[in-house]
Amino acid sequence: MFLAKVYVYYKKGVLDPQSGAIKNAISDCGFEQVRDVETGKFYNVKIDAADKATAQKIATELCEKILSNPVIEDYEFDIMEA
Amino acid sequence: MFLAKVYVYYKKGVLDPQSGAIKNAISDCGFEQVRDVETGKFYNVKIDAADKATAQKIATELCEKILSNPVIEDYEFDIMEA
Repeated sequence: MFLAKVYVYYKKGVLDPQSGAIKNAISDCGFEQVRDVETGKFYNVKIDAADKATAQKIATELCEKILSNPVIEDYEFDIMEA
Repeated sequence: MFLAKVYVYYKKGVLDPQSGAIKNAISDCGFEQVRDVETGKFYNVKIDAADKATAQKIATELCEKILSNPVIEDYEFDIMEA
């Protein structure tokens, strides 16, 4: 069994209103030391594969077909045995 | 400058309809090897602090006051120099 930790985030240049709202809230609360906030989603996916290469192939397909929108989002993942 | 990588996810036992929808989509697309999916949000926060301990204190406060809802969510973070 493998665990894929998938991170999906907006591509550079895509408007991210959530991050803007969080930055405003942070500054309203007086955290002057916070310089920047980027937001994204993560998925922990358990994959029952024979080896790491197969798990990697499945994770790539999952990311491209289901977990991310390739028009506006990029993704990264780490695979580990679980 | 420090980078805090913050992960926020539902506590065990909290209903996560997004994860259910994703599991259905994955199984409809024929990925039979996928056993489980957990969802969450991540935030990359840049903190201008004198040392790691200060950055850690600021990140904890941020997580508890702004980035997570402690009633239904747990959080974790890693701090690294950036």
